[in-house]
Amino acid sequence: MRSLRVGAAQLGPIMRDTTRREVVDRLIVLMREANAEDCGLVVFPELALTTFFPRWYLDDDPQELDSYYETQMPGPETQRLFDEAKALGIGFYLGYAELTPEGERYNTSVLVDESGSLVGKYRKVHLPGHEEHEPERPFQHLERRYFKEGPDGFGVWEAFDGIIGMALCNDRRWPETYRVMALQNAEMILIGYNTPMHYAPDPSQNPLQSFHNQLVMQAGAYQNGTWVVGVAKGGIEEGVDSLAESVIIAPSGQIVAQATTTDDELVVADCDLDWCKHYKNTLFDFDRYRRPEMYELITRPKTDQ
Amino acid sequence: MRSLRVGAAQLGPIMRDTTRREVVDRLIVLMREANAEDCGLVVFPELALTTFFPRWYLDDDPQELDSYYETQMPGPETQRLFDEAKALGIGFYLGYAELTPEGERYNTSVLVDESGSLVGKYRKVHLPGHEEHEPERPFQHLERRYFKEGPDGFGVWEAFDGIIGMALCNDRRWPETYRVMALQNAEMILIGYNTPMHYAPDPSQNPLQSFHNQLVMQAGAYQNGTWVVGVAKGGIEEGVDSLAESVIIAPSGQIVAQATTTDDELVVADCDLDWCKHYKNTLFDFDRYRRPEMYELITRPKTDQ
Repeated sequence: MRSLRVGAAQLGPIMRDTTRREVVDRLIVLMREANAEDCGLVVFPELALTTFFPRWYLDDDPQELDSYYETQMPGPETQRLFDEAKALGIGFYLGYAELTPEGERYNTSVLVDESGSLVGKYRKVHLPGHEEHEPERPFQHLERRYFKEGPDGFGVWEAFDGIIGMALCNDRRWPETYRVMALQNAEMILIGYNTPMHYAPDPSQNPLQSFHNQLVMQAGAYQNGTWVVGVAKGGIEEGVDSLAESVIIAPSGQIVAQATTTDDELVVADCDLDWCKHYKNTLFDFDRYRRPEMYELITRPKTDQ
Repeated sequence: MRSLRVGAAQLGPIMRDTTRREVVDRLIVLMREANAEDCGLVVFPELALTTFFPRWYLDDDPQELDSYYETQMPGPETQRLFDEAKALGIGFYLGYAELTPEGERYNTSVLVDESGSLVGKYRKVHLPGHEEHEPERPFQHLERRYFKEGPDGFGVWEAFDGIIGMALCNDRRWPETYRVMALQNAEMILIGYNTPMHYAPDPSQNPLQSFHNQLVMQAGAYQNGTWVVGVAKGGIEEGVDSLAESVIIAPSGQIVAQATTTDDELVVADCDLDWCKHYKNTLFDFDRYRRPEMYELITRPKTDQ
């Protein structure tokens, strides 16, 4: 039994005028709490360092837009988090907006091990929302304007005595996300998210946000025999109510821990990474049962369809 | 709104000595009931004409084994079903064991339209269980001995004023099943199943059979914006307790109708095929949001992995 004790470190709202220092203070509080609870890994949400800025059209103020991105990781304000992780001997996953030296912008997460060393970086593959300003919306969802689609796909990393994958928010709704990592033997997939309770293009989905959130992560866990840790930035942030309900899900698809507030909250579970074998070696023995030659449409380029 | 009223015609147990005639009588009762309820389509289970024979090792009695297969569809005993469908003006989906003139054996389903014409045939892609006799099991699951893997993949058919796909039992646990059909614009996927409540290779899954059954079909519906009709042969058949809980699931992933018994039972729902657009044209707009170039591992041949 390889047991990894994980903390899902949900965040409540971060306002537009909240400073990085204030946010990192909150992250460190949660990290210390996770350490006090004997966690080896603490998982923070997507875009955890700032408010969810894609809700605004910011072309009129490029300086404000740029202020939401990190140009280094660790950088001046986040170094403390790495230092604290190293001092405590706890690893973490952190989502943030990345601006590269070449000027590319990504919705990114990093995985940092117990020694404070960066072991992996992931750039969001599935960007939801829209590219252009849609003034009729009370809030924008301009991820497709402010980020470039991640070019590297879904990787996994050997860390925490297991095989760990990363995804971000909308990725969790696509079964390919989990599958590509499971085909690389992922045993735990970490997913930060920001999920507004309103979905402007189809309000019929609004009352189903909680159901859909659980459905896709539970199915992703079960169908791939992997742990899934889903961590929200929840609560009412700048007028937008966002789903909380951070969860830790077993390879059976069962929810083993779940947040009960919409604020900063740590949820902890002992995750036996060997439990994955119950599924990976039986019902979902990929080598024995998959039929990749029958899935060809899934990878066919979009222009050919 | 294109509304298709569908009946999920669950079957209770069929015993080893039950004749085809008796089974077809039961199917016709359910078909007439569906017709009386104004259904345009009635969906029967997998291997609906006989007991679930892969539970026995039958190499000692090839004659008994052969007796479970249909060499024609319609054949002498099933012609009545086609005639009744035509007379009533109702379509149906039927699962059965197929033995071809070339001697190939498949776990097959057919789709028959309101005029009694065969419009589509599907041969099961994902065969669960094992190839060899495992005498230590109280019951075998010899689908991999008694059937060949379906060579044609997942198709869809224009019928019932919609686009209809078919799958069988274990297929429903694999997200690729739904995806390949959704990439062909499936609006409703029909799935018959026989699911023992015991899973010998990992009994920890036994108490989760109902949860997993719903999870995979609800996720498949939601992630592909399609209706899913899952129909069981349930109840205690020759000593094996099998999951019932036939369901009709909306493109939202919500269960809109569900069987309450473990016996022959018709469950009906009005399915608006245009409701699929709520998902296919927004959150799951494949052309806009999918990243097929990132999914390459999914179709990589198994020998290369």
